[in-house]
Amino acid sequence: MSEKPWDGRFAEKTDKLVEAFTSSIQVDKQLYAYDIEGSIAHCRMLAKTGIISGQEADTLIQGLDAVKAEIEAGKFRYDDSLEDIHMHIESRLGEIVGNVAKKLHTARSRNDQVALDIRLYLRAETRAIIKSLSDLRKAIVNLAENHTDVVLPGYTHLQRAQPVLLAHHLMAYYEMFSRDQARFEDCLKRINVMPLGSAALAGTTYPIDRHYTAQLLDFPNVSANSMDSVADRDFAIEFLSAASLCMVHFSRLSDEMILWSSSEFAFIEISDAFTTGSSIMPQKKNPDVCELVRGKTGRVFGSLIALLTLMKSLPMTYNRDMQEDKEPVFDAVNTLKSCIAVYTEMLPNIAIRKETMRQAAEKGFLNATDLADYLASKGMPFREAHGCSGRAVAFALSQNKEIHDLELWELKKFSDMIEADIFDFLTTEQMISRRTSFGGTALENVKQAIEQARKELKTQ
Amino acid sequence: MSEKPWDGRFAEKTDKLVEAFTSSIQVDKQLYAYDIEGSIAHCRMLAKTGIISGQEADTLIQGLDAVKAEIEAGKFRYDDSLEDIHMHIESRLGEIVGNVAKKLHTARSRNDQVALDIRLYLRAETRAIIKSLSDLRKAIVNLAENHTDVVLPGYTHLQRAQPVLLAHHLMAYYEMFSRDQARFEDCLKRINVMPLGSAALAGTTYPIDRHYTAQLLDFPNVSANSMDSVADRDFAIEFLSAASLCMVHFSRLSDEMILWSSSEFAFIEISDAFTTGSSIMPQKKNPDVCELVRGKTGRVFGSLIALLTLMKSLPMTYNRDMQEDKEPVFDAVNTLKSCIAVYTEMLPNIAIRKETMRQAAEKGFLNATDLADYLASKGMPFREAHGCSGRAVAFALSQNKEIHDLELWELKKFSDMIEADIFDFLTTEQMISRRTSFGGTALENVKQAIEQARKELKTQ
Amino acid sequence: MSEKPWDGRFAEKTDKLVEAFTSSIQVDKQLYAYDIEGSIAHCRMLAKTGIISGQEADTLIQGLDAVKAEIEAGKFRYDDSLEDIHMHIESRLGEIVGNVAKKLHTARSRNDQVALDIRLYLRAETRAIIKSLSDLRKAIVNLAENHTDVVLPGYTHLQRAQPVLLAHHLMAYYEMFSRDQARFEDCLKRINVMPLGSAALAGTTYPIDRHYTAQLLDFPNVSANSMDSVADRDFAIEFLSAASLCMVHFSRLSDEMILWSSSEFAFIEISDAFTTGSSIMPQKKNPDVCELVRGKTGRVFGSLIALLTLMKSLPMTYNRDMQEDKEPVFDAVNTLKSCIAVYTEMLPNIAIRKETMRQAAEKGFLNATDLADYLASKGMPFREAHGCSGRAVAFALSQNKEIHDLELWELKKFSDMIEADIFDFLTTEQMISRRTSFGGTALENVKQAIEQARKELKTQ
Amino acid sequence: MSEKPWDGRFAEKTDKLVEAFTSSIQVDKQLYAYDIEGSIAHCRMLAKTGIISGQEADTLIQGLDAVKAEIEAGKFRYDDSLEDIHMHIESRLGEIVGNVAKKLHTARSRNDQVALDIRLYLRAETRAIIKSLSDLRKAIVNLAENHTDVVLPGYTHLQRAQPVLLAHHLMAYYEMFSRDQARFEDCLKRINVMPLGSAALAGTTYPIDRHYTAQLLDFPNVSANSMDSVADRDFAIEFLSAASLCMVHFSRLSDEMILWSSSEFAFIEISDAFTTGSSIMPQKKNPDVCELVRGKTGRVFGSLIALLTLMKSLPMTYNRDMQEDKEPVFDAVNTLKSCIAVYTEMLPNIAIRKETMRQAAEKGFLNATDLADYLASKGMPFREAHGCSGRAVAFALSQNKEIHDLELWELKKFSDMIEADIFDFLTTEQMISRRTSFGGTALENVKQAIEQARKELKTQ
Repeated sequence: MSEKPWDGRFAEKTDKLVEAFTSSIQVDKQLYAYDIEGSIAHCRMLAKTGIISGQEADTLIQGLDAVKAEIEAGKFRYDDSLEDIHMHIESRLGEIVGNVAKKLHTARSRNDQVALDIRLYLRAETRAIIKSLSDLRKAIVNLAENHTDVVLPGYTHLQRAQPVLLAHHLMAYYEMFSRDQARFEDCLKRINVMPLGSAALAGTTYPIDRHYTAQLLDFPNVSANSMDSVADRDFAIEFLSAASLCMVHFSRLSDEMILWSSSEFAFIEISDAFTTGSSIMPQKKNPDVCELVRGKTGRVFGSLIALLTLMKSLPMTYNRDMQEDKEPVFDAVNTLKSCIAVYTEMLPNIAIRKETMRQAAEKGFLNATDLADYLASKGMPFREAHGCSGRAVAFALSQNKEIHDLELWELKKFSDMIEADIFDFLTTEQMISRRTSFGGTALENVKQAIEQARKELKTQ
Repeated sequence: MSEKPWDGRFAEKTDKLVEAFTSSIQVDKQLYAYDIEGSIAHCRMLAKTGIISGQEADTLIQGLDAVKAEIEAGKFRYDDSLEDIHMHIESRLGEIVGNVAKKLHTARSRNDQVALDIRLYLRAETRAIIKSLSDLRKAIVNLAENHTDVVLPGYTHLQRAQPVLLAHHLMAYYEMFSRDQARFEDCLKRINVMPLGSAALAGTTYPIDRHYTAQLLDFPNVSANSMDSVADRDFAIEFLSAASLCMVHFSRLSDEMILWSSSEFAFIEISDAFTTGSSIMPQKKNPDVCELVRGKTGRVFGSLIALLTLMKSLPMTYNRDMQEDKEPVFDAVNTLKSCIAVYTEMLPNIAIRKETMRQAAEKGFLNATDLADYLASKGMPFREAHGCSGRAVAFALSQNKEIHDLELWELKKFSDMIEADIFDFLTTEQMISRRTSFGGTALENVKQAIEQARKELKTQ
Repeated sequence: MSEKPWDGRFAEKTDKLVEAFTSSIQVDKQLYAYDIEGSIAHCRMLAKTGIISGQEADTLIQGLDAVKAEIEAGKFRYDDSLEDIHMHIESRLGEIVGNVAKKLHTARSRNDQVALDIRLYLRAETRAIIKSLSDLRKAIVNLAENHTDVVLPGYTHLQRAQPVLLAHHLMAYYEMFSRDQARFEDCLKRINVMPLGSAALAGTTYPIDRHYTAQLLDFPNVSANSMDSVADRDFAIEFLSAASLCMVHFSRLSDEMILWSSSEFAFIEISDAFTTGSSIMPQKKNPDVCELVRGKTGRVFGSLIALLTLMKSLPMTYNRDMQEDKEPVFDAVNTLKSCIAVYTEMLPNIAIRKETMRQAAEKGFLNATDLADYLASKGMPFREAHGCSGRAVAFALSQNKEIHDLELWELKKFSDMIEADIFDFLTTEQMISRRTSFGGTALENVKQAIEQARKELKTQ
Repeated sequence: MSEKPWDGRFAEKTDKLVEAFTSSIQVDKQLYAYDIEGSIAHCRMLAKTGIISGQEADTLIQGLDAVKAEIEAGKFRYDDSLEDIHMHIESRLGEIVGNVAKKLHTARSRNDQVALDIRLYLRAETRAIIKSLSDLRKAIVNLAENHTDVVLPGYTHLQRAQPVLLAHHLMAYYEMFSRDQARFEDCLKRINVMPLGSAALAGTTYPIDRHYTAQLLDFPNVSANSMDSVADRDFAIEFLSAASLCMVHFSRLSDEMILWSSSEFAFIEISDAFTTGSSIMPQKKNPDVCELVRGKTGRVFGSLIALLTLMKSLPMTYNRDMQEDKEPVFDAVNTLKSCIAVYTEMLPNIAIRKETMRQAAEKGFLNATDLADYLASKGMPFREAHGCSGRAVAFALSQNKEIHDLELWELKKFSDMIEADIFDFLTTEQMISRRTSFGGTALENVKQAIEQARKELKTQ
């Protein structure tokens, strides 16, 4: 068992079970690079302000680099009795550079140190997620642009409602992921705040220069209250909220991919490389990727609840409960990144069954609204026109026909206003091309939306 | 039972149980004012674009105003068979203005209409919450400013750690609520988008002008994809996330108020007007307000989970599940508003027991860190200084004394570097005044933080 | 403002905002009948033990009955300043019976009183839910029994897997709701414990007889520790857990009903009386009931999280946070009851499209597993047989045929073991009738399962 | 890349990213022992029913034992392309025993196989948890029994309420953990059901004997519906619900331990071996174990939400989403077990500061209720007596005294009924010894409760 950094006042050694229970090294070792990056900046600041000498700083920095190299070479030894990544690094540093290592922790505490580490980690990962969301959005726009001639039923209540362009449907997801990206960018503002130098909770008596540390680590802002700095995990919860919402979008997209892959819809076929089979049923080709993504939604919600629950009612400032903040965050980061990556690769590998989609769009009275609109455009109040069209649907249904399969004289029974031009009016093409209201599914609108998306993606 | 707006194709009447089960009027009637505001703007747009005549628009608007007046006068009759607030208003409008009422629903659907209503509602409420958070922050700054001479123990792990100014402690909450406000402002950007004119899901064939409607309703943005417009409740989930985080802060503040009101801490006394008693124990004076606020945290988390769960895996576009979006949002809005209001009123009614706080700050070895710092400032590496101070604590503890109660010769046993100036160095005043690192608890820092807060509050 | 039952030591009156904030009367007035029932039993016990006289008890009980009658006649006046239902009833009792009313609260506290009320409420509601789950299970068995001749595809991954009987599919839900019922019954054991007489937290000095009170209120058990009695809401959380799981089952059933109602599946048609239409699309007939049930799942999960969050970290014993326990419980009770009721009524109103189901079962290579089994039964190791059948599927797919549409010589290319008897072997009827393993879909098994279910339902 | 058990119909190889994304081996390898145990029982059943020969079964079983030995010796090679633990074991088995390995999967599917594995795992772990909860309860009873002479304040609202015995306070936790144990036992009934032989979803055509398999694996019940068998994860959710509630109890106990360890309460001192220090503040001795346990509550709630979310709305039967069921369950099992273990070891290492507790119990008007009871026992209606005692408290407070410090003549100002015997009546001893109502804090009651607990623990 190693010596603890705090055993001056302790008479007994830590219980072995407690050591294992309280150790976080198996989790927080992932933060090693950020911990060392932060320590190096801290050293530089200590030297600049004269708290340690320039030579001491150089020794420490070289030592920290050596520790980092050991970790990355897989030569570093981990040990529960050293509690966490901070102590592991400092302890090894001592072995390498000797007594001067004991000066590294001047004017800081593990409380502000770990706050810095998580912020550095989450800043890097949030930026990576923002970048990969851009790639995903590009993949969506590509798929949309390659299929501007594909029509499918738009659904409400999973009932066929009105025909839409597949490109329009896909661009709805573009919008969702754009909002996700915006939320991560907003979150990044609040992640990107430098807490080091808050020390245990009250600030420090050393003449440190926190703005210099911030500058070295490229933080635009320095935390304004030392107690808040070490007590705050808002940014992690906000990240998990944004991640949860992003997973909602993935779950919706996945649900549609799964539906569309079913024999009943048969709108798409995901390539063999992105599906898997059954150990018992030889015919199966399952949309496993989509299902797993949908299933992973739960774990991100769970991480959000874990951290909200953890922080609820904690008094100021740092409490050991907060050690449990890392796993939910790490897990959500990894989950989200893998879902984005796998979707970005899979989308171009989806074959669109254009004819099946079109046939579906032409069956199920999807032109009933347009029949009502037709009547309304001839002066019938909309509510009346709606009822009139509803009766036509009921009649057609009883004849096992679509509206456009009825004869003109049959249609005229529902309103004299109906003329021969109705048949042209009720074609899928016409219905789509007439929906030119801003944001509507008419081809020209969708093309503009795609163009607009291209512009947005270029500026990022 | 009323006629349904959609019964053209239906042969049977709705089952009574189903009518009650699917009706949302008891909940969404709260949206009446927004629904009417949206309908009036819609009318004006329909008239401007020539879809209805100016006279028709005038009639409809007068009728809508009349309906609103009836509702506000408590004279409006609600009925489950009319399903929701939209149908209630339209139906009554028909009774007042006659057949022209049937034109109101031209070029829109309940799907985009309800999306508009919730956005209008949530925009107003979010603005109100932002405003009231400013008031709360002012109350915190006032309390801090009035008590810049009060010292109490700063805690980590609920163990006394280092002395801090009460004003500094309070300003930590100022920071938290400032971040909450910033999050609500970010959320507002995404709420403040106009969905009307997306119609059922695909846009509309009428030559509507959505930007004009947006202008009338003071929306800076118009939703870009009609399918997304009616399928999207992101803004509500984002609101609930921000609200959950704000409640985390209230739960932490409340937990501290409850602790501080206990006999054991006895740091504060909440005035009689803000506490309640017991039906059986005559001596009790309970911090009920704080407890209730803390307890209400759960219901806001619950609302967040409710809406995340609801939206998970829903295929495009509108599904009736989404009718269930309103209660969690309404409940969180009301909960949050009441918590903000009651705290803003209660804070000035809290008596600070300055002497008890100070005594607590002077007992429990809160100057042990400073003893280490003292040694480190004389050249001892920090880790050694820490161990040295730890041994002094253990010794003092065994003598049932504080460090500053030891004799110089006793202290010298732990290090020769300790001189007579140590006693001055370890006073609470000195310890606080030395913590001048940016964000630290030194009085001058805290005063600057208060001044900075005043500036921020003024510009809002 | 009314006098408080505790204002002896208070100098100031309660702030109006606080009064509104802390009042629970709008919520807990639903408990009035249980509160009065509990008070009557308490009176009887007080008289039996000589703590009050028999005459006093009679007066109190008559008064309580009178209060109950007023409430049920809608003549009772509610007022925030009276805080809760307990104080409302006691206060009105005082007006009716005079000074003796002040003896009612002897040897109890609101802490144990409210614990009793919630247990009485939840006991009654849990029993009602158990009863209604039996009715729902009967409705499922009826539907199954009426359709033992209907075959449809069984799905995994929403891909057609193997043919099953509809009755077998439905009986899967019977199993789920049976488990739900068992869980509610287990929960009931822990609800059904009598807390009254624990007083504020420490028991009481009066010579009460808690077992007598329990007997009067038909409780088989008396709580064993007074502190636990007033601090415990486990039973409510356990109820919400069981309710959440039950809603998971409803959400799964609803999702299937929605899928099956789609044009793509078209397996069922829910009657007009249990569907609703669209205000804009005349052809729509939406499975709203199923969607709403699915959507309501979230609110029950939310209630569970609300109460778990609330109870987390509360120190002994009663804390005011716990006042917030009622709304999540009431809401979940009402939600669950309405979902059970509406499904029990709707199930018999679902038309089964037998032919569509059968056609689906015969398309999509659902006999590929049986081809593998056929080969394995002739001695080929299963893994090889699986590969062989997989290649046959790939070939048939390339020919745009089903396996059973291939010629014998074509099939023989995949294995010489395949003989002419294969065609009979691969019919849907044969496939189903061969699955006679216990719990399998063969008709005889399903009939036995139905019979077994009938027996279970009879004994309840 | 290995061959897949299902690649007969596939033309392309699985994408590498997909292989990594869909592989579960890193998680489900923990199930190896259960997987092999299940396979061995399956083999025996296949041999008994003549589906394979006795010799084949022997070969397979020997092979499976060899695989197990390799895994336990750390010599087993894992590979993402083999997807999961089932395929890893079967593949290695094939290398060891040759072609006969391909017969192992006869009459089963991974769908029922994994359901069996999780049930075996969760049965073992639930039994272990039940056992360890017994140990914890013993530790609580021991602590209680060793301190029957310790008095401390009982709290409501974290305000001192009435004096209680520490043993009584501790026994409240005994009750909570007893209920937890009962819930796990109820849950075990529903875990302990044998699903194997349900095959993919519809049962199997082989003449298997599921009851024999159940007997071999010591399952009292066999699942009744094959579709439900593979679609069901209720038992896992129920386990997580029970675990969440158990963590609520740990969070409450931990919160009290943390409070009691503070300088303000100073009721207990946790031994050095179970506390840790600070890297910056030499005096700190933090109740980290308690804080971590409290913090871990969130992750168990999160796991519950993860699995509830996952299962919501999944159509029949198995969907790949369900692969995500394991991590939340494994994590909750490990978390709960470690919390139980660490508390069971820590409880005997807590020093009780008897004098501090007693002093706290004698300050803060904890006898105000008894003063009211005194008056009520002399005939004053309780509500009046309560007011009277409240005024005495207010007066004493103004004199900075306790009630029992007042002179008789001072007390008489509040009621003539007060006599000299009041002083004896209001002592802590008297107050406790009078609370003899069943479940109350009187010593004799608490001793009986301890005795009863001993009996319960013996029969387990």
